[in-house]
Amino acid sequence: MNRQQLVAQIQAKRSYLCVGLDTDIEKIPAHLRHRPDAVVAFNKAIIDATKDACVSYKINTAFYESMGIKGWEAMEETLHYIPDTHFKIADAKRGDIGNTSAQYAKTFFEVLPFDAVTVAPYMGEDSVRPFLEYPDKVTIVLGLTSNKGSNDFQQLLVEETEDKNLVPNIIGGNRPKALYEKVLERVANWGTPDNLMFVVGATKAFELENIRSIIPDHFLLVPGVGFQGGSLADVSRYGLNKDCGLLVNASRAIIYAAADENFAAEARTIAAQYQVEMSSYLPA
Amino acid sequence: MNRQQLVAQIQAKRSYLCVGLDTDIEKIPAHLRHRPDAVVAFNKAIIDATKDACVSYKINTAFYESMGIKGWEAMEETLHYIPDTHFKIADAKRGDIGNTSAQYAKTFFEVLPFDAVTVAPYMGEDSVRPFLEYPDKVTIVLGLTSNKGSNDFQQLLVEETEDKNLVPNIIGGNRPKALYEKVLERVANWGTPDNLMFVVGATKAFELENIRSIIPDHFLLVPGVGFQGGSLADVSRYGLNKDCGLLVNASRAIIYAAADENFAAEARTIAAQYQVEMSSYLPA
Repeated sequence: MNRQQLVAQIQAKRSYLCVGLDTDIEKIPAHLRHRPDAVVAFNKAIIDATKDACVSYKINTAFYESMGIKGWEAMEETLHYIPDTHFKIADAKRGDIGNTSAQYAKTFFEVLPFDAVTVAPYMGEDSVRPFLEYPDKVTIVLGLTSNKGSNDFQQLLVEETEDKNLVPNIIGGNRPKALYEKVLERVANWGTPDNLMFVVGATKAFELENIRSIIPDHFLLVPGVGFQGGSLADVSRYGLNKDCGLLVNASRAIIYAAADENFAAEARTIAAQYQVEMSSYLPA
Repeated sequence: MNRQQLVAQIQAKRSYLCVGLDTDIEKIPAHLRHRPDAVVAFNKAIIDATKDACVSYKINTAFYESMGIKGWEAMEETLHYIPDTHFKIADAKRGDIGNTSAQYAKTFFEVLPFDAVTVAPYMGEDSVRPFLEYPDKVTIVLGLTSNKGSNDFQQLLVEETEDKNLVPNIIGGNRPKALYEKVLERVANWGTPDNLMFVVGATKAFELENIRSIIPDHFLLVPGVGFQGGSLADVSRYGLNKDCGLLVNASRAIIYAAADENFAAEARTIAAQYQVEMSSYLPA
């Protein structure tokens, strides 16, 4: 599924919800936990319950890797169960020198039929480029993440250099750019809004107006709504663009909405609430 | 294996060589390539041939993931074949929000018995912390990498702030710190030289003197010798510290030293050459 098809799904469903399958065996309801196929059974029930309300699923690879080979089998089986009407994201945060990134791209775009993969920018252009070489696949680069640690490096101010590293300050005058702003600006030049998206945490909604001035057309994958405390209203107000341009992810708030046999029904209810709220933010 | 045991091995063998098992099925000698266990057979032969000359093996997870579940099986089998006298590194470049990094740490420190894993710093302290919580395990954080793209963000100069962001310039006066210098400085505060190492590319040997002024005691994992063109002599001159403090990695230069039935013997020869050269740089 490419960007155009994703936009069509968003318009048809009036939803820009991504459900995060961060499935932790310890948190699966007790009646499923001891089945040999616990993770897959849980994921299939969540997908059945939420697919009408969402347009995307995000598989957090860490939770599958930590189960060893059985985990990779569960990831594959889950991935193949996601309908082709949904945008399939590997949240893997990979990135390495060129020949190694090429192997990661092969993993998530050929061996596993994901539509998109998250990539860390620290190693620069040649670490991102191999992912961008796949037509009709999307590379989602970390911009400003939702966690406290995003202040450690992403918010460092970068010196003015020959390329005019100043932006208007909201309180007047100019200020140096933060690292994450340089990342958005530079990475945006390596691809197009068709093959590049960025991660921006929902807890950073107040930065979205500024972010939209740097990358008006790109889709943003926005984690941090729900459990991490981000506001869907704020993210939508400052983040929506003419093609919607947002995929707002909720993981724990949906998949662990209930810890008993009603988990899927509760997940459906929460996902539907997100869809209704999202619909209210989209143009009629 | 912890830092102390690694130092003892380095002293006993007079080597600080790490052999990188970036095993690409396309590059395995023809006589092995079509065996069902091609990757494992190749790796075992390389380990047998090089283990006397090196103190560490680095498994590049990308090359195994790109073979799907069979690849993870090959990684596990290779890992278990590496002798306990050798420091076992997962070159995985992971890093995510806290609960997700905890899963990655579990993967590489519990499910797979690696001694160390490489981690990307972009997401900050809470993305690195879960790895550091394992006693006797080592977290290797990206500092200044060996690739061209390291110029894109790692070398950006960071604004002076209240925390005195100036360093003496080698040509006199002060200059702002580069991002990678801030990364070394801040991350070093999150752990100790016992549980933290840093990646510094061999192609950046001219930066090592400065890097040693920031982190005199930490081990550096140094890729980029051999195929990528870094100089072992320069890396050793500027990077060695009182405990050696270097693990110099060569991957392609050793494992693909020959593409025929002599590949293991040739790998042994090249690894032994590195050992002899390293011995000449260590104090008698």
